[in-house]
Amino acid sequence: MKGFAMLKIGETGWITKDTPECGPLDAICKPLALAPCTSDVHTVWAGAIGDRHNMILGHEAVGEVVEVGSLVKDFKVGDRVLVSAITPDWNSLAAQEGYSMHSGGMLAGWKFSNFKDGVFAEYFHVNDADGNLALLPEGMDLGAACMVSDMVPTGFHGAELADIQYGDNVAVIGIGPVGLMSVAAAAIRGAANIYAVGSRKNCADLAVEYGATDIINYREGDIVEQIMDLNCGPVDKVIIAGGDNDTFDQAIRMLKAGGKIGNVNYLGEGDYVKIPRGEWGCGMGHKQIAGGLMPGGRLRSEKLARLIVANRIHPEKLITHRFEGLESVEPALMLMKDKPKDLIKPLVVME
Amino acid sequence: MKGFAMLKIGETGWITKDTPECGPLDAICKPLALAPCTSDVHTVWAGAIGDRHNMILGHEAVGEVVEVGSLVKDFKVGDRVLVSAITPDWNSLAAQEGYSMHSGGMLAGWKFSNFKDGVFAEYFHVNDADGNLALLPEGMDLGAACMVSDMVPTGFHGAELADIQYGDNVAVIGIGPVGLMSVAAAAIRGAANIYAVGSRKNCADLAVEYGATDIINYREGDIVEQIMDLNCGPVDKVIIAGGDNDTFDQAIRMLKAGGKIGNVNYLGEGDYVKIPRGEWGCGMGHKQIAGGLMPGGRLRSEKLARLIVANRIHPEKLITHRFEGLESVEPALMLMKDKPKDLIKPLVVME
Amino acid sequence: MKGFAMLKIGETGWITKDTPECGPLDAICKPLALAPCTSDVHTVWAGAIGDRHNMILGHEAVGEVVEVGSLVKDFKVGDRVLVSAITPDWNSLAAQEGYSMHSGGMLAGWKFSNFKDGVFAEYFHVNDADGNLALLPEGMDLGAACMVSDMVPTGFHGAELADIQYGDNVAVIGIGPVGLMSVAAAAIRGAANIYAVGSRKNCADLAVEYGATDIINYREGDIVEQIMDLNCGPVDKVIIAGGDNDTFDQAIRMLKAGGKIGNVNYLGEGDYVKIPRGEWGCGMGHKQIAGGLMPGGRLRSEKLARLIVANRIHPEKLITHRFEGLESVEPALMLMKDKPKDLIKPLVVME
Amino acid sequence: MKGFAMLKIGETGWITKDTPECGPLDAICKPLALAPCTSDVHTVWAGAIGDRHNMILGHEAVGEVVEVGSLVKDFKVGDRVLVSAITPDWNSLAAQEGYSMHSGGMLAGWKFSNFKDGVFAEYFHVNDADGNLALLPEGMDLGAACMVSDMVPTGFHGAELADIQYGDNVAVIGIGPVGLMSVAAAAIRGAANIYAVGSRKNCADLAVEYGATDIINYREGDIVEQIMDLNCGPVDKVIIAGGDNDTFDQAIRMLKAGGKIGNVNYLGEGDYVKIPRGEWGCGMGHKQIAGGLMPGGRLRSEKLARLIVANRIHPEKLITHRFEGLESVEPALMLMKDKPKDLIKPLVVME
Repeated sequence: MKGFAMLKIGETGWITKDTPECGPLDAICKPLALAPCTSDVHTVWAGAIGDRHNMILGHEAVGEVVEVGSLVKDFKVGDRVLVSAITPDWNSLAAQEGYSMHSGGMLAGWKFSNFKDGVFAEYFHVNDADGNLALLPEGMDLGAACMVSDMVPTGFHGAELADIQYGDNVAVIGIGPVGLMSVAAAAIRGAANIYAVGSRKNCADLAVEYGATDIINYREGDIVEQIMDLNCGPVDKVIIAGGDNDTFDQAIRMLKAGGKIGNVNYLGEGDYVKIPRGEWGCGMGHKQIAGGLMPGGRLRSEKLARLIVANRIHPEKLITHRFEGLESVEPALMLMKDKPKDLIKPLVVME
Repeated sequence: MKGFAMLKIGETGWITKDTPECGPLDAICKPLALAPCTSDVHTVWAGAIGDRHNMILGHEAVGEVVEVGSLVKDFKVGDRVLVSAITPDWNSLAAQEGYSMHSGGMLAGWKFSNFKDGVFAEYFHVNDADGNLALLPEGMDLGAACMVSDMVPTGFHGAELADIQYGDNVAVIGIGPVGLMSVAAAAIRGAANIYAVGSRKNCADLAVEYGATDIINYREGDIVEQIMDLNCGPVDKVIIAGGDNDTFDQAIRMLKAGGKIGNVNYLGEGDYVKIPRGEWGCGMGHKQIAGGLMPGGRLRSEKLARLIVANRIHPEKLITHRFEGLESVEPALMLMKDKPKDLIKPLVVME
Repeated sequence: MKGFAMLKIGETGWITKDTPECGPLDAICKPLALAPCTSDVHTVWAGAIGDRHNMILGHEAVGEVVEVGSLVKDFKVGDRVLVSAITPDWNSLAAQEGYSMHSGGMLAGWKFSNFKDGVFAEYFHVNDADGNLALLPEGMDLGAACMVSDMVPTGFHGAELADIQYGDNVAVIGIGPVGLMSVAAAAIRGAANIYAVGSRKNCADLAVEYGATDIINYREGDIVEQIMDLNCGPVDKVIIAGGDNDTFDQAIRMLKAGGKIGNVNYLGEGDYVKIPRGEWGCGMGHKQIAGGLMPGGRLRSEKLARLIVANRIHPEKLITHRFEGLESVEPALMLMKDKPKDLIKPLVVME
Repeated sequence: MKGFAMLKIGETGWITKDTPECGPLDAICKPLALAPCTSDVHTVWAGAIGDRHNMILGHEAVGEVVEVGSLVKDFKVGDRVLVSAITPDWNSLAAQEGYSMHSGGMLAGWKFSNFKDGVFAEYFHVNDADGNLALLPEGMDLGAACMVSDMVPTGFHGAELADIQYGDNVAVIGIGPVGLMSVAAAAIRGAANIYAVGSRKNCADLAVEYGATDIINYREGDIVEQIMDLNCGPVDKVIIAGGDNDTFDQAIRMLKAGGKIGNVNYLGEGDYVKIPRGEWGCGMGHKQIAGGLMPGGRLRSEKLARLIVANRIHPEKLITHRFEGLESVEPALMLMKDKPKDLIKPLVVME
């Protein structure tokens, strides 16, 4: 079969591999829709997860089941399915403790385009089909469905980690596709004012549509000052969905004592995240810092899909560019790499 | 001063009393807007809290401060204020443990029209002004503001007790004003499908506007069956905002193992709430049952008011009947007692 | 193979069956130690879970692995293992939500001697060996190890459900083997005073050894009064590990507003658990009621075993009667049925 | 009255001041027992909280009430009382949100020897007596009682912030008096193995007595390696009760994905706490970092005192040096400054 792969750090290309084998608990799917992710860009061009050779890229997909293992109970050939970017081993100790994304080691629940071939291929392999697939709800837009792989659960996890409560004033730093979903998540978690930090016009417009009350442009001054001014003091919670190691410094400074930070931004470089001692209350300010990979798996996909069906969220609006055909994952990924001004998220639909 | 009072069980009337005295931590307010509550009806005509003599009724108000005690720091004469129906003693052991509404004994944080005169008077007394008042946000509709006393915090507490998570399917039993706010609360807490149980048309319409996906009419069949059918199985969470002791039986039956019930309905009569043993998993089904009086006080009022200002909720839509002048609290209360079909909530605005 | 079975309601006997087959994820074990449980008695003589025919009894065991499936990674033939009484399907939706004990339906994580043959046989089958077995720590007493199947996790879950915090005063109702483990659990969760309710001398003595500060004998008067007197008021938390449907009435009466009840007692009969309306604060007293089947599986067994190895708990002290040989499970079960005064828990060790 | 004060950074001495005035909610106490704290040393000689002039030192005390304000309900002259080091304004927004220690601003619930005169004087002032004093239980050792001011609640808060669960393996970094109480707290919160990091013999001995399973001496090698070796991998939780900004680097390295850090060490200098990016899972490892000032007030004191009365903890064992008479607070503080090998904590009892 054909797949679009990372050949080595800095290089991509089309390769041919055997169709993956289906273990007794697994499924083989063919893609119905695919989306490239900034992680794919970091993986290839920044070497964020280390070197990989001829590894097929991609972890965001909607699929159709073409084969199931002998022990799979709930899915059959022909089922159209949501595919979680994170596909844990559910009987692992980490999963039993509530951290399925770390099954097999820290972050190791992330398998597609990390420890095994990803979804940018004619066929892809899903471990533990019963635990990690979910039926595509009838009539769901493929773009919305494809966002359930990663953008929606990651963005929503930011709001969960920040532990948003009714009436909280919340800063969301970063309004790329993940940050935008964090804005939507904060709004339907009970946030009052949502200060969304970003500079691109189309992202800012969608942030407002998703529930941001104010857009903070970092080009127009220090974001800590801007937010503290608007909010007449520090905020209750901060979601970090963009930036770098230094973003935590800003987050701590704009956060009240007793506040919480939820990070869902992958920190790709640098040695240390730096927490400003004094503003952190000399270690005693109850400014909690949490960061974590999205929870994956079937239940998560089903519950987030319900929110789409019930009209609570509209992730299809993230998609600014639509392509057709497997071969289009290459230009779609390049678009993600080049990040033109009008891009939020590309989608590739199979013909 | 003049006040509208419960004379004894079953009887109301206008009485004259001395203006209340202002302790060093307290404030005296005059009303700007008032609303009667079903609790007032139960207090007078069902004797729900026992006998009371010449006790001024009412616990829902927006006020203007006319006097403050010597130790009050944050409020001054002339301030327009949100007034919480529940006004705890914040240094009590109960409050220190997180249950301020039970300061001084179970439910004893509820003082207005319970242990002391209520707000249906020319002047009313607020204990611990700094802890229990909140500034009325500039431009806020007095109707919305008056709902922050009780309807909003009580309805929202139902969603908190039921511990709603993203994508939960939720039943809300009862769509009077409290239940309607529970619907709104569930929707902005991340519920997917919301099954709202009621029969009145105007309530049902507002429930849909507030986020209910389905209206379940108990006149059209067993609500457990109707909900289980629509939901293809038991729901994740149940909020009880109406009904009686037997409602818990229904709630347990429609709830999945691992689900939670949040009750904010005052159970006025009967000896026992009955939990069906088998459907409760023989005591082992992890169907958690919680019920509690709303959290009151200043922070709560401020945070809920923020949700109104940020356009997240619209409690003013509860108000179907508007009156003018203090003397109108009498017909407004009678309306609440008679419950005509087109009533959700009356409001009395002072001239 | 030979096994001791429930032939039908009210009747037990030895039967012969084929050795169970080992699926790719499973293990077959032979017992090293076994213990009968009050549940076995209820299953047979009270018909608590309905009728069963020729079902091998027993769900408390220490075992030795004699066969493993092709997909099992962490266990091999010859391993000596702790066996959880509850053996969930870890990829189920219920487990993904944190309620693995309800995988496959309410209480359906309980499989041994319920939906399939139990452990009172020459060999028994364990589903998902990697997820549900744990290595027996070197040198651990077989009696202590056998209590990790059910008595320890069930007793401890009572303390978890009651959400004990530092300095809480706690009532533990019932001091059979589960209640005794709840006493130990409360003591190492930070309880201050522990009021243990029971009447048998050996149980009372062990309760004190495990951390009870006071023994409340229900033969000497109403337990609510006795506990409220000793505690100078209601307690913070109640663990129910014995009694019947009416025990909840007592528990609510002795519990403060804002308190919590954790039930781990299987309620075998009666239509309704009755919650006294007034003492429950008319539904508004924040007296939370939770009850649930023990969490099972490998992580749980490993973590509880660590507590034994670290000398924090001593469950082997529950064992008052020791037998030898598989055939002794019959007299051991009869002892459990007859409950002589000096019995807490019998153990059968294989020769 | 006479008091022992910080004259300016680096200088202490005896001064004379007017006896403090008693507001309507307050109490004036005379000390029965006093203890200096490392914070006093940092305050004076490291200038940790900035400059102060003629501020009486000390925040650990047992007292006797000599005057109460007109609104105080629960205490009277002659009462012997536990005095919390942290004395919040209970009606503040911070307290209403559950962070009373930050009432009036981050860390501003800490008033003694910070924003007002401390307890090392003939008389000291307690704001909100009903909310911040607790009756000294009859017969309680004054040394144990004095530890309830700060050492016990601070040490215990470390275990709360680390969110210890049954069977967790826990590292406690630092075994001065606070760290020792964290060891005791971990043991009665359900920890299995407790790795206590320190080097002094008397502290190590007491750590073992309080429940440490292993002592890790940082002089004998890298503590991360030592702990990971002993534990065969990373630990579940880390309590930081000593060290400096770099200790967080070690804590992250020894902590598993999904683990939690609870810090109760005051970080007195340096610009940044540094979190190692890679070992923190690139921001995605769910290694939660929390740090906070102890919760103070009456309920906390009462509940911790219950643990002493119920024989669960023995904080009096911290006290290695006993002095007599107010004038001895000077040598007691100097002892704290010089930290001789045999010191854990000094106590001064009034004659």
